[in-house]
Amino acid sequence: MTRWEPNARERLLIAAVDLFSEQGYDETTVAQIADRAGVTKSTFFRHFPDKRELLAAGQATLSRLLAEGIATAPAELGPLGAVAAGLHRASETLGPVNHELGPRLQAVIASSVELQERSILKSVGLASAMAEALQARGVPDATARLAAEMGVLAFHQGYSAWSSRPDGGSGELARLSLAALDELRTAAASLE
Amino acid sequence: MTRWEPNARERLLIAAVDLFSEQGYDETTVAQIADRAGVTKSTFFRHFPDKRELLAAGQATLSRLLAEGIATAPAELGPLGAVAAGLHRASETLGPVNHELGPRLQAVIASSVELQERSILKSVGLASAMAEALQARGVPDATARLAAEMGVLAFHQGYSAWSSRPDGGSGELARLSLAALDELRTAAASLE
Repeated sequence: MTRWEPNARERLLIAAVDLFSEQGYDETTVAQIADRAGVTKSTFFRHFPDKRELLAAGQATLSRLLAEGIATAPAELGPLGAVAAGLHRASETLGPVNHELGPRLQAVIASSVELQERSILKSVGLASAMAEALQARGVPDATARLAAEMGVLAFHQGYSAWSSRPDGGSGELARLSLAALDELRTAAASLE
Repeated sequence: MTRWEPNARERLLIAAVDLFSEQGYDETTVAQIADRAGVTKSTFFRHFPDKRELLAAGQATLSRLLAEGIATAPAELGPLGAVAAGLHRASETLGPVNHELGPRLQAVIASSVELQERSILKSVGLASAMAEALQARGVPDATARLAAEMGVLAFHQGYSAWSSRPDGGSGELARLSLAALDELRTAAASLE
């Protein structure tokens, strides 16, 4: 008898990163991940279409949060102000589990071209989600794409800085991402 | 007896875009492409590892030219000045064949998720090549990435504008890309 498992998704993620780190990505099967997480294979497939998508977990959620943060930012904010609101909204949802998994996930991704490709596509997906949300605010196309790229760079820099620090709280991630965005704004203003 | 075929690479590209447009990407085989181009399958595989890579043709060359243009730009130029030199260098190598193939290639890419992914990876590859060349000039990491993203956006915008115009000369592509880069520089300077 299968019983409903709270947090099956999170447990699958943790089990997968553990197994990928221990024995390699290619050598790990969906059955092993499900087994380690204490769920069935069909539970795995309710949460993830395949092993590769597991490492892009959260892309849809992050995209939605970034876009929502941008859409609901005060109308008087410019494109980067709206991007900052998006980063803030998305950061709130990441906490100690992500902080702990992040660096190990990066190491697994670095070990496989297939995963590097998936990871790049995830970043591009986040940039598109932000660019579309900015366009919906009336930001011209090229400016929207530029501000969105800056948002992705800032989020990556913030996440990377956060991963190497002891404070795994979401407030710290938001602070680091916004600081990175500020630096990029300064750099952009003086580009020649 | 196989004889050496000048421009086999270009003929393979044209044959592939023709076949993809006529009968779809999934339905087209490497054998059909080679046949249409009048070469053997082994000639195909001397030029391209597979069907997917064919549509990212030129990534290595473009990356090299963008990086060379940046590396050899006068030392007094800032990051965007160096990016402009890279765009100029890369544009010089594209001419009427690319101008004619471009829009049809885009239509084929839009028809397949696999090709869209490959195309995104190509763009990211070009951005990395430019960012590395800028870093080698002493440009700080975040500024280099930002300027490189602007270079890719400008190249895409320039290429897209070029595709819809009658003048397929490389000078026109360079002009349109540099105009797009100028617009992005203005947008970046006033981002808030």
